[in-house]
Amino acid sequence: MRVLGIDPGSRITGFGMINVASDGGLAYVDSGCVRTEGSSQSQRLKTIYDGISAVITSYVPDVLVVEKVFMAKNADSALKLGQARGVAICAGINHELEAMEYTALQIKRAVVGNGQARKQQVQYMVKVLLGLSGTPQPDAADALACAICHAHYAMGRAAVTRGLGRRARAV
Amino acid sequence: MRVLGIDPGSRITGFGMINVASDGGLAYVDSGCVRTEGSSQSQRLKTIYDGISAVITSYVPDVLVVEKVFMAKNADSALKLGQARGVAICAGINHELEAMEYTALQIKRAVVGNGQARKQQVQYMVKVLLGLSGTPQPDAADALACAICHAHYAMGRAAVTRGLGRRARAV
Repeated sequence: MRVLGIDPGSRITGFGMINVASDGGLAYVDSGCVRTEGSSQSQRLKTIYDGISAVITSYVPDVLVVEKVFMAKNADSALKLGQARGVAICAGINHELEAMEYTALQIKRAVVGNGQARKQQVQYMVKVLLGLSGTPQPDAADALACAICHAHYAMGRAAVTRGLGRRARAV
Repeated sequence: MRVLGIDPGSRITGFGMINVASDGGLAYVDSGCVRTEGSSQSQRLKTIYDGISAVITSYVPDVLVVEKVFMAKNADSALKLGQARGVAICAGINHELEAMEYTALQIKRAVVGNGQARKQQVQYMVKVLLGLSGTPQPDAADALACAICHAHYAMGRAAVTRGLGRRARAV
């Protein structure tokens, strides 16, 4: 199963693609950011749509995953986040991908084992779980964390842990 | 010039299409709602995208107009509104339409002549300005008001008033 995690934002939208083996083993595919600074609102949304569409077309994921937002900081930022989120989800549904959603608590529990984990802990565990040589950019790391969370819930924690153990031995 | 006004919402997205003659005369083309009740978030956003795309494909407008939102009621509703708004704008930009934005004050001034006008006054003036036999559904009326506002700013108030006078005489 190939999973695309998305961390939408009006300025930076992170994405992270992983493969999940049938035994729960995780493999990093790609990650990065779609940056939209310095253009009109329409153009920013188009940049997000085109960027995520290009990632989907290149890697043909089976599922798209985004963090469920319960409460944004304020109404203005929520509106901007919602627009970016709507466009990213739209890019998915126009490629026949249903968007799965997980709360921040579920993502942190799946990746760190602690729903109250700090951002840096999530980044560190993304690096460890995927066997990366460096720490991914924060938005890309959040997107990869979404994808890992889906693997966790789809395959079961035990299977993901087995996969991690096997890869850790192989390193 | 053919103008598509959109009033996005997570449950009901209104649309309104008008023609604006070179002398500012307004002519109603079509209006209606895309209703998204009772499905998942992804499906609701897809329904909005597909609905607005179908309207654009059928009527081939020259411009898409949405109300500029300064402050939503709360962060949760702002997020949902933002998602619907992002998807509607996305449908436009994927058909080469840049989204124009006007504030509620600009729209009310353009349609009623009073930036503090109530919703019913806007609905009534939409009916009068477009020579409709009945009052449009509220979300469709708001969408038509967006389109009329763009006509007002694009063509100049005087030209729109001349068009109205000519049509009023013809009735």
